[in-house]
Amino acid sequence: MSILVVGSVAFDSVETPFGKADEVLGGSATYFSTSASYFTDVKLVAVVGEDFPDEHIDKLKGHGVDVGGLKKVAGKTFRWKGRYDYDLNQAHTLDTQLNVFSAFNPEVPENYKDSPFVFLANIDPELQMKVLEQVRTPKLVACDTMNFWISGKPEALKKLLKKVDLFVINEGEARELAKEASLVKAARAIMNEGPRILIIKRGEYGALMFNGKSIFSAPAYPLENIFDPTGAGDSFAGGLMGYLANTGDLSEENIRKAIIFGSVMASFNVEAFSLGRLSSLKLDEIRARYSEFKRLTHFEDI
Amino acid sequence: MSILVVGSVAFDSVETPFGKADEVLGGSATYFSTSASYFTDVKLVAVVGEDFPDEHIDKLKGHGVDVGGLKKVAGKTFRWKGRYDYDLNQAHTLDTQLNVFSAFNPEVPENYKDSPFVFLANIDPELQMKVLEQVRTPKLVACDTMNFWISGKPEALKKLLKKVDLFVINEGEARELAKEASLVKAARAIMNEGPRILIIKRGEYGALMFNGKSIFSAPAYPLENIFDPTGAGDSFAGGLMGYLANTGDLSEENIRKAIIFGSVMASFNVEAFSLGRLSSLKLDEIRARYSEFKRLTHFEDI
Repeated sequence: MSILVVGSVAFDSVETPFGKADEVLGGSATYFSTSASYFTDVKLVAVVGEDFPDEHIDKLKGHGVDVGGLKKVAGKTFRWKGRYDYDLNQAHTLDTQLNVFSAFNPEVPENYKDSPFVFLANIDPELQMKVLEQVRTPKLVACDTMNFWISGKPEALKKLLKKVDLFVINEGEARELAKEASLVKAARAIMNEGPRILIIKRGEYGALMFNGKSIFSAPAYPLENIFDPTGAGDSFAGGLMGYLANTGDLSEENIRKAIIFGSVMASFNVEAFSLGRLSSLKLDEIRARYSEFKRLTHFEDI
Repeated sequence: MSILVVGSVAFDSVETPFGKADEVLGGSATYFSTSASYFTDVKLVAVVGEDFPDEHIDKLKGHGVDVGGLKKVAGKTFRWKGRYDYDLNQAHTLDTQLNVFSAFNPEVPENYKDSPFVFLANIDPELQMKVLEQVRTPKLVACDTMNFWISGKPEALKKLLKKVDLFVINEGEARELAKEASLVKAARAIMNEGPRILIIKRGEYGALMFNGKSIFSAPAYPLENIFDPTGAGDSFAGGLMGYLANTGDLSEENIRKAIIFGSVMASFNVEAFSLGRLSSLKLDEIRARYSEFKRLTHFEDI
């Protein structure tokens, strides 16, 4: 089954302890689409400016991503500039230029509207809602957000969450959204706002899923070097949603597998700047790393 | 098989967001012994002052702990005062009074010297070494330490590590000891100093074991409330060493099980101040929580 994704396609400038990259291809929808493309068909809704090179669009096409909903308009492409220190869990935003995103009014192409899986990547919750209003009876709606919207547009976010089945959010942002220090209590509070499945991303500590009364703890892959964490969350979501859409199976056991595939994709993504690693994976590598996650967490019953 | 443990027996005064406790029973060896006592025989080497009440000693005896090596000497018992804020991974030490510990010269009773398992809980590495020099051909020597000794007695610690099989240490302290931001690299560097098994404690994120080329990631139990993290690391070590001593099996698979038992004991310990929860457990509760850890981490193979 196919996934519709709306989110940012951007130029990122990133500095980490391991190096820097200037104006490279980035954006939540870019990472998500590339990651998910290993599992299923992806239909992209986003906007770029006239300065966006065709070769980047060709890269997405090369992954089989449907770019019929990617608009090129007058103006400059969205830009994000950030720095990571040794604590690679924490991005320090140095500059954000919304550019063409500030006037973005997402239009979902007709042939996208029956997509059974919808991912609303991290953008303005009002834009996320506009996309959601245009799709017909999706099987699963998932979304991400960030502190900027939690504090900036709490009402729009609250309204959106009522329509969302699966919500992915960072650990610190979950606590901020719920105004609750205990993560388990924060999770319960957020699920009371709508999502029946909540996935809390914990960076190098992995992820926690809350699904009804069940909790699943997934580790992160212990890497010697994390070159650039940018896009890790979106690569995670891409693997997660990609596997769910590929199988069409929303059982607890299958969501757990999907979370591991998400973790696999995130672990590859952080091994290089931009999409350096994520865009050149082989299915065998993905499967091999899944098995490494299995070995990493295995212990016997008593 | 039995375990010899040397460490502190103390009065703790602790404040957390959930309440406070004044001059309650604490200390690394106390938590360790109580936790390990659910699995095997424990022989305790420690020192207390004249102000230490017999009822506390009776409590340890009630758990079957051999207190033949617990000396009561002139002076006051070791005292620690600390505070935890909402980030319960981080203890803020407000006051430390070594008292009788400052002149402690551990003597290992004759009937302790053939203990096959030895745990050197977090005290001065010179004292840890003195104990180790008195035991005969142990099967497994494990130790813990803290930032205070990493910066204060690095040479003594380095000398000790050469004699240690299994080293447990906090994540931040592992990075500090190895002077290395990457945890995987820090682990390799520490293992080059001696220990063939390294367990890195990550508080509410669980633990990572490095054993040769193998890595095992264990989660922490997601609790609604962590009332008091004091002693979590020692309860963890107690469950870990207790299970290893109980089975006498040092295979990779069995160490993984032991780490889960350690995590189970730590999860109980933090549910109450002092030994409130840890000292009144039933074996069925321990086994049930082990199974919950299994369910928490389970995912299917591809």
